[in-house]
Amino acid sequence: MATGKINVSVDNIFPLIKKFLYSDHEIFLRELISNATDATLKLKHLTSIGEAAGTEYGNPIIEVKVDKEGKKIHIIDQGLGMTEDEVKKYINEVAFSGAEEFLDKYKDSAKDSGIIGHFGLGFYSAFMVAEKVEIITKSFKDEPAVHWSCDGSPNFELEPSDKTDRGTEIILHIADDSTEFLEKSRISALLTKYNKFMPIPIKFGTKTETLPKPEGAKEEDKAPTKEVDNIINNPTPAWTKQPADLETKDYQEFYRELYPMQFEEPLFNIHLNVDYPFNLTGILYFPRLTNDLNVQKDRIQLYQNQVYVTDNVEGIVPEFLMMLRGVVDSPDIPLNVSRSYLQADGAVKKISSYITRKVADKLSSLFKNNREDFEAKWNDIKIVIEYGMLSEDKFFEKADKFALYPTVDGKFFTFEELQEKLKANQTDKDDKLVILYASDKEAQHSYIEAAKAKGYEVLLLDSPIISHLMQKLETSKENISFARVDADHIDNLIKKDEAQISKLSDEEKDSLKAELESVIANKSYTIQLEAMDSSASPFIITEPEFMRRMKEMQQTGGGGMFGMGKMPEMYNLIVNTNSDLVSEILNTKTAKKKERLINQSLDLARLSKGLLKGEELTNFIKRSYEMVK
Amino acid sequence: MATGKINVSVDNIFPLIKKFLYSDHEIFLRELISNATDATLKLKHLTSIGEAAGTEYGNPIIEVKVDKEGKKIHIIDQGLGMTEDEVKKYINEVAFSGAEEFLDKYKDSAKDSGIIGHFGLGFYSAFMVAEKVEIITKSFKDEPAVHWSCDGSPNFELEPSDKTDRGTEIILHIADDSTEFLEKSRISALLTKYNKFMPIPIKFGTKTETLPKPEGAKEEDKAPTKEVDNIINNPTPAWTKQPADLETKDYQEFYRELYPMQFEEPLFNIHLNVDYPFNLTGILYFPRLTNDLNVQKDRIQLYQNQVYVTDNVEGIVPEFLMMLRGVVDSPDIPLNVSRSYLQADGAVKKISSYITRKVADKLSSLFKNNREDFEAKWNDIKIVIEYGMLSEDKFFEKADKFALYPTVDGKFFTFEELQEKLKANQTDKDDKLVILYASDKEAQHSYIEAAKAKGYEVLLLDSPIISHLMQKLETSKENISFARVDADHIDNLIKKDEAQISKLSDEEKDSLKAELESVIANKSYTIQLEAMDSSASPFIITEPEFMRRMKEMQQTGGGGMFGMGKMPEMYNLIVNTNSDLVSEILNTKTAKKKERLINQSLDLARLSKGLLKGEELTNFIKRSYEMVK
Repeated sequence: MATGKINVSVDNIFPLIKKFLYSDHEIFLRELISNATDATLKLKHLTSIGEAAGTEYGNPIIEVKVDKEGKKIHIIDQGLGMTEDEVKKYINEVAFSGAEEFLDKYKDSAKDSGIIGHFGLGFYSAFMVAEKVEIITKSFKDEPAVHWSCDGSPNFELEPSDKTDRGTEIILHIADDSTEFLEKSRISALLTKYNKFMPIPIKFGTKTETLPKPEGAKEEDKAPTKEVDNIINNPTPAWTKQPADLETKDYQEFYRELYPMQFEEPLFNIHLNVDYPFNLTGILYFPRLTNDLNVQKDRIQLYQNQVYVTDNVEGIVPEFLMMLRGVVDSPDIPLNVSRSYLQADGAVKKISSYITRKVADKLSSLFKNNREDFEAKWNDIKIVIEYGMLSEDKFFEKADKFALYPTVDGKFFTFEELQEKLKANQTDKDDKLVILYASDKEAQHSYIEAAKAKGYEVLLLDSPIISHLMQKLETSKENISFARVDADHIDNLIKKDEAQISKLSDEEKDSLKAELESVIANKSYTIQLEAMDSSASPFIITEPEFMRRMKEMQQTGGGGMFGMGKMPEMYNLIVNTNSDLVSEILNTKTAKKKERLINQSLDLARLSKGLLKGEELTNFIKRSYEMVK
Repeated sequence: MATGKINVSVDNIFPLIKKFLYSDHEIFLRELISNATDATLKLKHLTSIGEAAGTEYGNPIIEVKVDKEGKKIHIIDQGLGMTEDEVKKYINEVAFSGAEEFLDKYKDSAKDSGIIGHFGLGFYSAFMVAEKVEIITKSFKDEPAVHWSCDGSPNFELEPSDKTDRGTEIILHIADDSTEFLEKSRISALLTKYNKFMPIPIKFGTKTETLPKPEGAKEEDKAPTKEVDNIINNPTPAWTKQPADLETKDYQEFYRELYPMQFEEPLFNIHLNVDYPFNLTGILYFPRLTNDLNVQKDRIQLYQNQVYVTDNVEGIVPEFLMMLRGVVDSPDIPLNVSRSYLQADGAVKKISSYITRKVADKLSSLFKNNREDFEAKWNDIKIVIEYGMLSEDKFFEKADKFALYPTVDGKFFTFEELQEKLKANQTDKDDKLVILYASDKEAQHSYIEAAKAKGYEVLLLDSPIISHLMQKLETSKENISFARVDADHIDNLIKKDEAQISKLSDEEKDSLKAELESVIANKSYTIQLEAMDSSASPFIITEPEFMRRMKEMQQTGGGGMFGMGKMPEMYNLIVNTNSDLVSEILNTKTAKKKERLINQSLDLARLSKGLLKGEELTNFIKRSYEMVK
């Protein structure tokens, strides 16, 4: 048996690293600024622990310069720099990570230093856009500066340099197919995308600042100005601070930094801050949400040690929370070499359930501490909570305590309160609690009125996924059911033992039904005679709960049911046998007048249910104008 | 000056390749089956060009076996196998690609062989899920079989093997953190996702097949069965065939293979097939589309040499076509090492414009060859075409010839036909062609009727983005404008020179207006007296075009306007001074009756515009029931 060691040749692997490691060429800038940041953070750490005697940390910045004529980009830091030996180790050895080595060496003290590097590959991404790369570097140690250059061949040259100030300058000679990166606007956009919240100030050009006028200046004198460094980043974004050090306005300002085009204030925020079993910080915002589930995703940004990673946080943030906005930053989310995160990793799943729990806890405390405010915000946040209750059982358990059920009159109940409030009046003869609701206060107005006339509460439930949630509540709670106010006439929705006495005899009813059917025959309503209050409407059109709810669930449910074709619409026509108008219909002798009465009543019932449209409505209006005259 | 060569050590790079190259562990199976496929395709090529004397290609398959108890997965091919020297070259040298070497060696003849491999890295993805990997391989050449094994350390062992049949078997000893891959259902799902259309048959277990009953068998006898290989893939999917060899039913069957859960047939398909300047095949389907732009994306799948890559084809397929379904396969789309494609690449942009052009050409030929059928499908496909006209100028130019404008009566015009048809009757006194439209036949019925009474055509334009398209048409065509039928009363929408004579004197008008304003004052309608046909409605509510259209554009436009708050609703109340009812209002002496007439007329006008709702509608209905009696 032979043994050996798998081998890798730089001639094979280097072209892959240069060309095919990253999907997006633009990330070269992110990688080089990350390296510059690490060089600075390392120096900061060494000076702080006294391992850089004689070196002043000062206020180092990173500078990015674009030289369009010279076809060059410079990235200059004031970090710890490299000696010749270090260049040989960190640059000439692919995949030897100086960051890892540093973290290993200074284990405990450097743990929270924010060092970004990991794989020792990022530097070579420069060759995606540059035909030649130079490094000019001077270590903080008392050693001569060196000048390294490489055309990606992978042969390099190394010589002494006369650089005297501490730090590293990277010079990219941009290749002809990458000249887009010589545009200042492109670099500026990249810096904003990837580096906006990195911890070391990044200078890109200068800007003009207006100074206060000197004392005694005249009205017409111009205020003096001066050129100052244009710092493109905020090195200490809100999420890196302690919640105790932040006020509401700080959170609002940070929201505006994240979403400069958003004019509305967020409703509230959740500051994430956990050390164990993983490190994670971040701020999530609840914006005002509409009822459209689809358009409002993908606004949460993922960072790692303040470097932007992605705005696709699938897996890290549970789906129902992807409608929120904000930032999550975790050094513990495992990224692959091109900085996409490893979805299948266990850490990612733990983060997702931590976030779910934090959001539930925050909502619960908002509910407990200021119920009035929570109620005021309910309609703008309910879609997230209802979606979460449907999709995550653990969230359901918690949210069941604070999820609100508003009435058409603007009262808000938790489910438990609702049961307590309704049980006396809305329990039917089979001991079932019937919860009445409307989905549209305007369109279902007459039905709501009929329910309120009986002293019933009517909820206003108008989310697109509410039918799914009702289904879930009906199976998880005992002896309750939901019914929309127009699902049947009110005495049938909540059946009590007392029966209404009908003014009509059975014979009269039979004859009325036959007459109605002969006039209405072709309109496909199921006619149902009911003895109701004489003050209730003569004709009422209803739409049975089950079919309607199934139809709604099909529309929002997706999946397998999608292809099954549309469910039919089903309506009943309830005729109130105790109504004066119905008596009049029965007693009218002339067939023509009877027909007119029936048709006009049917039109009014359809109008009330929103079913009288188009030509029929136009004709109804014409007839009505005639009657006005 | 010193020179040297950048170096890479396997100890540094191998852990990265094992752990951090790919975001998703599951792709190990895709990579290993791709290698098995390449081994088989290479043998096929060698036998076809006579370089494998004495070797019968036969009907090779690839077999995948899961041994849950032994914690092993086997992937067995009958391809060309490897000699000991080849194992040393292809396996022990990371990033040395045997596929590239093969394509180089057999340049012209092997160009279309469908070889998948590229980087020489895929094999090592096995170590993401396996703690130990074995290779047992026997070359088609007359050399002994060899047995390689490695625990990822990266040390390997190599010894002779007694394998006698040609081909390679890979054995993965699944690690404890990856036991999910020992579930048959998981492997089966992975094979379906990545390998469903790969070119060599893939066996995964067996299945029972019912045979025909033998002659003379009795009714009650069971039909005989036999165990047969369960082949999970279709090695020759429709897109790899020539369009001339396919019939409509073949395309439909392939659609069902792609979307087994879709019950509706696609409307038509576009077979993509191009050799130059890049290779690309594929089939795009137009499904029946709804008016919801958001929910129907991400159904097109990208393949490379029949290996599934992704269903996110952003950049490759222009955005407006992402609502289509189907498959795109191109060996020329550059992928990075983890098989995500390089978005910034020029090839990707060229592919996108090729697809746009092919789709436009197909639509154009459908329109020319069978206009009736094209009209019948228009409403199901218009959203794509209208979206394309808005977003791609090149598509606009082509689509302008076949985009249809349907009328409320079911006629269809191209824009040119529309101009021709309307110009005599609908050109106003300023020489502008006014195109009338409705967005809802039912809701705008009375307004449509008023326009038709004048002999005008009314289009039915109901897409969510139609207001943007109208805006574009108004600026790109000369002297035309769109107006919705309820934007003003019909004589104002298309102003002609002839003026209607008013029955009322100026004094009467002033007094009428004052009376109307005193009753209607608090309802915020702008009252406008107009002399119209006496048969036209007495009161009409209109909604000016400009504000309404801006509001609609804001709703669908997104972007910066989003935060600007809602635009106000604006309505006018047109009062027809020539209507009998209006004369009656003017001449009524009792204030109470006058007020009732005005209010009832206003309610009817609001009803006609869909503005009478909720309590007001309920009260209107109650009053109307009283009037019926």
